[in-house]
Amino acid sequence: MRAVDVIQRKRDGQELTREEIDFFIGGHARGEIPDYQASALAMAVYLKGMTDPETVALTEAMMRTGEVLDLKDLPGPKVDKHSTGGVGDKTSLILAPLAAACGVYVPMISGRGLGHTGGTLDKLESIPGFRVNLSLAEFRAVLRKCKLGLIGQTPEIAPADRKLYALRDVTATVESRPLIAASIMSKKMAEGIDALILDVKTGDGAFMKSFPDAKALAEAMIAIGKGMGKKVAALITDMEQPLGKTVGNALEVVECIETLKGRGPKDLESLSLELAAWMLHLGGLGSLDAARIKIRDALHSGAGLQKFEEIIEAQGGDPRVCGDLSLLPKASEEVPLRAPRDGRVSRIACRAVGQAAMLLGAGRETVDSHVDPAVGLVLHKKVGDLVIEGEPMLTLHVNDKTRLAEAEALLKAAITIAPEVRARGPLIQAVLG
Amino acid sequence: MRAVDVIQRKRDGQELTREEIDFFIGGHARGEIPDYQASALAMAVYLKGMTDPETVALTEAMMRTGEVLDLKDLPGPKVDKHSTGGVGDKTSLILAPLAAACGVYVPMISGRGLGHTGGTLDKLESIPGFRVNLSLAEFRAVLRKCKLGLIGQTPEIAPADRKLYALRDVTATVESRPLIAASIMSKKMAEGIDALILDVKTGDGAFMKSFPDAKALAEAMIAIGKGMGKKVAALITDMEQPLGKTVGNALEVVECIETLKGRGPKDLESLSLELAAWMLHLGGLGSLDAARIKIRDALHSGAGLQKFEEIIEAQGGDPRVCGDLSLLPKASEEVPLRAPRDGRVSRIACRAVGQAAMLLGAGRETVDSHVDPAVGLVLHKKVGDLVIEGEPMLTLHVNDKTRLAEAEALLKAAITIAPEVRARGPLIQAVLG
Repeated sequence: MRAVDVIQRKRDGQELTREEIDFFIGGHARGEIPDYQASALAMAVYLKGMTDPETVALTEAMMRTGEVLDLKDLPGPKVDKHSTGGVGDKTSLILAPLAAACGVYVPMISGRGLGHTGGTLDKLESIPGFRVNLSLAEFRAVLRKCKLGLIGQTPEIAPADRKLYALRDVTATVESRPLIAASIMSKKMAEGIDALILDVKTGDGAFMKSFPDAKALAEAMIAIGKGMGKKVAALITDMEQPLGKTVGNALEVVECIETLKGRGPKDLESLSLELAAWMLHLGGLGSLDAARIKIRDALHSGAGLQKFEEIIEAQGGDPRVCGDLSLLPKASEEVPLRAPRDGRVSRIACRAVGQAAMLLGAGRETVDSHVDPAVGLVLHKKVGDLVIEGEPMLTLHVNDKTRLAEAEALLKAAITIAPEVRARGPLIQAVLG
Repeated sequence: MRAVDVIQRKRDGQELTREEIDFFIGGHARGEIPDYQASALAMAVYLKGMTDPETVALTEAMMRTGEVLDLKDLPGPKVDKHSTGGVGDKTSLILAPLAAACGVYVPMISGRGLGHTGGTLDKLESIPGFRVNLSLAEFRAVLRKCKLGLIGQTPEIAPADRKLYALRDVTATVESRPLIAASIMSKKMAEGIDALILDVKTGDGAFMKSFPDAKALAEAMIAIGKGMGKKVAALITDMEQPLGKTVGNALEVVECIETLKGRGPKDLESLSLELAAWMLHLGGLGSLDAARIKIRDALHSGAGLQKFEEIIEAQGGDPRVCGDLSLLPKASEEVPLRAPRDGRVSRIACRAVGQAAMLLGAGRETVDSHVDPAVGLVLHKKVGDLVIEGEPMLTLHVNDKTRLAEAEALLKAAITIAPEVRARGPLIQAVLG
């Protein structure tokens, strides 16, 4: 078999065999197939697509270039959630403890933020002492003890995906549905899970701007998961405005702790609980309705918060933050952004809010950027809320003022105030699976 | 400007600007843009195409990465011919001396054979002592003296094309019309010529199998040439059977010398003379009809043969070969292939004949293969000719018998004998320009 022939067949729109995909992905991961052939194939896939069987084969091939966790010795269902990323999207820190408290093992391997989107690892690292870079052996031990582990991508997991993704990033082949789906699923399926709930975001702040695109990506990932014999479902959820009220790492941790105390914003609470309920349901712990009740009970009894304290301690962090939020990093200055007129908030351009937070240092402009855990912003108003001229619409939490003016300008343009506001669509736009 | 953005625009089917193309091609040639980005762009071009202005810009960008000959000091038109390659396609050795004898300068930079097709350089090198690897300074001196120079691609000519072509070869992006057209024209336009006649082959033995594909390639090259202010025309010519009777380097040189003596096969003579006449005409030396008469006169007066002797001597070869063909290398053994039955030759599968010659050592299986100048084959029958059972249809000229049986089997299958033969199409199928 020759790499050039595989490229040619995909170029001509033919369906690649599992053997061809294994040969190519394995060869690229081992350095036997050079990047210039991999990028040509990626472009051919971008322009010619892949069938569901090809995408399943691609996912498995990438997964098998690395370690696949075997968690069969853990006595219970292993379930994870994956979100395609957004602004203020912090549900992992709420749903993972809740689901673990209700009896599923949650072996969660997460990513870092880039551009306007945040990342679970950055949020966790704002907790003093919290270690996300556990070895797989440590991860396993924490998981056994707490039914929960929260770590970052390790070099052992799907190295082919890491190599291919870096290449796609510089060859304009990122936005390919089969490549995105296989990239996500190759890492998730390496976690050794039985089931997965997908939170596919749609709207201005999401990777997939339109509902049909989000739905198609969700369907592709579901097809992969099912093709690999797993239980997978997806919620398509709104990312037209930030989720919850905070954007920025320590600020978001505060909001998660508040939510686990039953005092969180309703949108964040309801989505987190619904995703956690799906995790129980897909894990085989009862009907969706029964799961919803269990999760709500775990919230109200404080079991979720207790589990969060437990995992913080197990991963080297200071669990006292849950009781004393002042132990979290805090920015030196708070700068309000005031309403320019009376009216209702009709739009919060979500991507711009994420970019403003990034400019303050809460996110990464490039993968090498330094993140400041303390900075970000807190929205006091969301879409539909009444505002009075001069009232703070949001507060910026600032340490470095270098790009403050730029962030403020972005935010001013991002928030639209109008006399009337159309009814908002539902937060959960569709359920697939 | 970023390479990834250029790739993305082509991926999305947009027309690249001249600046973008210059940036990318120059950057790749200088090693600033890596191969993995160039191969992704090549695949995007393969699948999305290029407009004529893009193809002109690509050609100029590749040409300008190397030396462009300035031949303005030579007092006369500078004209070349390019063929897309075939089997037994040896017109260069006939038309170049004829055209030079009639007053045009012919600065011909040629290639080597690969696969089933032969190359002018390999043919010339079968002449004892002939040097095709002149420096550009030597080339210039020979050209000034003889009005003719016959050399190989030098590293100074269009290095970007060389680098991109090597990459296309291993990324399934060779067969792209704009990339083929720009590759050919970037090298030809670097010769400092005023005009170019293209011989675009079509049929089984050609790169472009179908007439519409050949015509489209010819049109793309004409558009480039005219876009760069040159006179360019094209003949679309038949490659359904080998041109002339010989395939193999020294054998073909013999046939060229015979043709320059007025004793060549009619198909080879007529095409060579027509192409040479076009060179005079495009060079501004009179009407096409007047040019045809001049070229025929140069043949019959022996001026063409004399010019061939002159260039052989100027480039270090032994000009006595023209008078004494036994000075050319000769194979140790001749093996006839006999007709299996009475009838007429209805087909000679051209590509297979070229491959058989390659198996004997006349051509290259890979770019590193060694070529034996003496071996090849001589057709005694061509399409339409009567054959009697047991009569030799062709003779194989053999040194190394390792793959003789394989070559014989290919040739047996390649020649079809039938009771009746359909009328053959014309050798010159179309004239464009």
